[in-house]
Amino acid sequence: MSFFRPALDSLRAYVPGRQPDPGARVIKLNTNENPYPPSPKAVAVLHGLDADELRRYPRPFGDEVRDAVGRVVGVDPTWVLAGNGSDDLLTMLVRATTGPGRAVVYPTPTYVLYRTLAGIEEAPVVEVPFNPDFSLPVDRLVAADGALTFVANPNSPSGTATSRERLGELADGLRGLLVVDEAYVAFAEEDALGLLDTYRNVVILRTLSKSHGLAGLRLGYAIAHPSVLEGLSKVKDSYNVGAVPARVGSAALLDTQYTARTVERIRRDRALLTTALESLGCRVWPSQANFLLVRPPGGDAARVQDELEQRQILVRYFDEPALTEVLRITVGTSADHRALIDALRAILGSTPGTSP
Amino acid sequence: MSFFRPALDSLRAYVPGRQPDPGARVIKLNTNENPYPPSPKAVAVLHGLDADELRRYPRPFGDEVRDAVGRVVGVDPTWVLAGNGSDDLLTMLVRATTGPGRAVVYPTPTYVLYRTLAGIEEAPVVEVPFNPDFSLPVDRLVAADGALTFVANPNSPSGTATSRERLGELADGLRGLLVVDEAYVAFAEEDALGLLDTYRNVVILRTLSKSHGLAGLRLGYAIAHPSVLEGLSKVKDSYNVGAVPARVGSAALLDTQYTARTVERIRRDRALLTTALESLGCRVWPSQANFLLVRPPGGDAARVQDELEQRQILVRYFDEPALTEVLRITVGTSADHRALIDALRAILGSTPGTSP
Repeated sequence: MSFFRPALDSLRAYVPGRQPDPGARVIKLNTNENPYPPSPKAVAVLHGLDADELRRYPRPFGDEVRDAVGRVVGVDPTWVLAGNGSDDLLTMLVRATTGPGRAVVYPTPTYVLYRTLAGIEEAPVVEVPFNPDFSLPVDRLVAADGALTFVANPNSPSGTATSRERLGELADGLRGLLVVDEAYVAFAEEDALGLLDTYRNVVILRTLSKSHGLAGLRLGYAIAHPSVLEGLSKVKDSYNVGAVPARVGSAALLDTQYTARTVERIRRDRALLTTALESLGCRVWPSQANFLLVRPPGGDAARVQDELEQRQILVRYFDEPALTEVLRITVGTSADHRALIDALRAILGSTPGTSP
Repeated sequence: MSFFRPALDSLRAYVPGRQPDPGARVIKLNTNENPYPPSPKAVAVLHGLDADELRRYPRPFGDEVRDAVGRVVGVDPTWVLAGNGSDDLLTMLVRATTGPGRAVVYPTPTYVLYRTLAGIEEAPVVEVPFNPDFSLPVDRLVAADGALTFVANPNSPSGTATSRERLGELADGLRGLLVVDEAYVAFAEEDALGLLDTYRNVVILRTLSKSHGLAGLRLGYAIAHPSVLEGLSKVKDSYNVGAVPARVGSAALLDTQYTARTVERIRRDRALLTTALESLGCRVWPSQANFLLVRPPGGDAARVQDELEQRQILVRYFDEPALTEVLRITVGTSADHRALIDALRAILGSTPGTSP
């Protein structure tokens, strides 16, 4: 006899990208970390934290994070809810709004965790394939009438983005919440913040994991109307954001100059990497994120990933029907890219019968 | 129209104890923090953390925490699951095992969050009152046949504890999981670890918030059979424990000498505070935790709490029918206790008609 709910027993757990042991000598291009360290100002806050800040419970709503986001993004702090990474906020959203008879809707392929979270809540899932050019199928998403609709924008693993205007059409058509998951927005051309003025049902999610080089810190935030955040807070752990992410993350948020510099560097290197991969015969989708969706010549993505891994280079392969021929490759440093291109040249050159 | 599930709209959110602003000059005896700072070795780890540990995603299962708990507690690391505070693990337990038709059962009065978490999952709740002497009503708990049964041990707010033997009788009678929430066990006479050898349905929960002076860090852990932890992990956020709590918390766990010293000091001061409160006419229940359940003479607990707060002394009053006449007071430093006793003497002495 199981101790667990039957729905859970049959659930396939979400498997995050591989995290090698600390100190392992690998080139890690599989989970979209920033290749550059976090803001020195944030690190200074970490190293100067008073022990008493660890001793006491943190403030339940991470007030410092709310204030910092408010200043940087230009919203009132009451429109901000902090999370233990944006995964924590995704969990809150699904728990608060969905369940049997209350559907979760999203375009695919996208972040696989949305499906897992819906499965945990026993919510129906409606997956609407992106159009072949990765434009957003707005009408079909509206027709699915979700209690919760997710759009990762820029999307992962495609790296493509939908305009604010199109997202507005989607928000306008939906009765339920629309979550625009902007994990990668720092690397994109525009954001969806402007929708908040018009649409009460829009929630914007952000994270410090990619743009701020703080994946290990665990800090994300939602921006939405205070009445929406009030509902979400009912399923929030009392002290979901520790004192360290609140203090260190706020300092990182406020160091906007540093973030702008590293983001610009990544965007520039993204263009260079695209060109280099295309010169090897790869198809590369246009990216507004800090990664590229890449189809190696021949589409033998699983083998290419394996052979890269043997050379201590990690890239992401998704064991999903729509994604068997592609890899997702994080934009790294110039040195990472040289090693990657050298390895790919060796791997692709050695394969019989892999013309594009 | 609400965006949320109807059950959530009617849910009363859990309200944690008040957290004053950092730097506020209060004597804080309301949320059971340790009055002493965390281990200097843990603080040294915090101040020496490499920025690269913040940049990368942490290991999904907090391996360092598993190893540290394994060594300190004497279990295999595969029997340990780390959480973002033990609240995170409570949430996982309720999400994984309960729901409509799958009851949550616990003796009352106890940690109010159990009720809130059950409400979120729309699970039936069976509250079984403790016996008047706070001994455990084992037969009635067994009869309630919960999918999940919680026993906080030592219990909050009573501070009383149930023997391992009695908990074994409960585990033996139950078909569902029995969670022994040992948040305060460091201050108690015995723990329930020995039950794990016999009962597959037992989960032990611990936290570093009280015994290790690390409430702000957010780190707790569950100890249970690996098959139970596997089920729980399906509802775990991928990276629920950040790099900082994993590294700093592990160092704190391994500094067992420091923890033993501060815990011994708190136990000694608990006895002294009990005597002092009794000399003012308070009823004080025998405590195995780092707090005391106290009935002021006259039972006018709400007023006493208010007047203490006016004097910058925070204690906990619960707005619950069974607890209207009592306060929960955290064991602090000797100086905290002198201030508390002086204030209580003034408050109680100034009240007409409050003989016990």
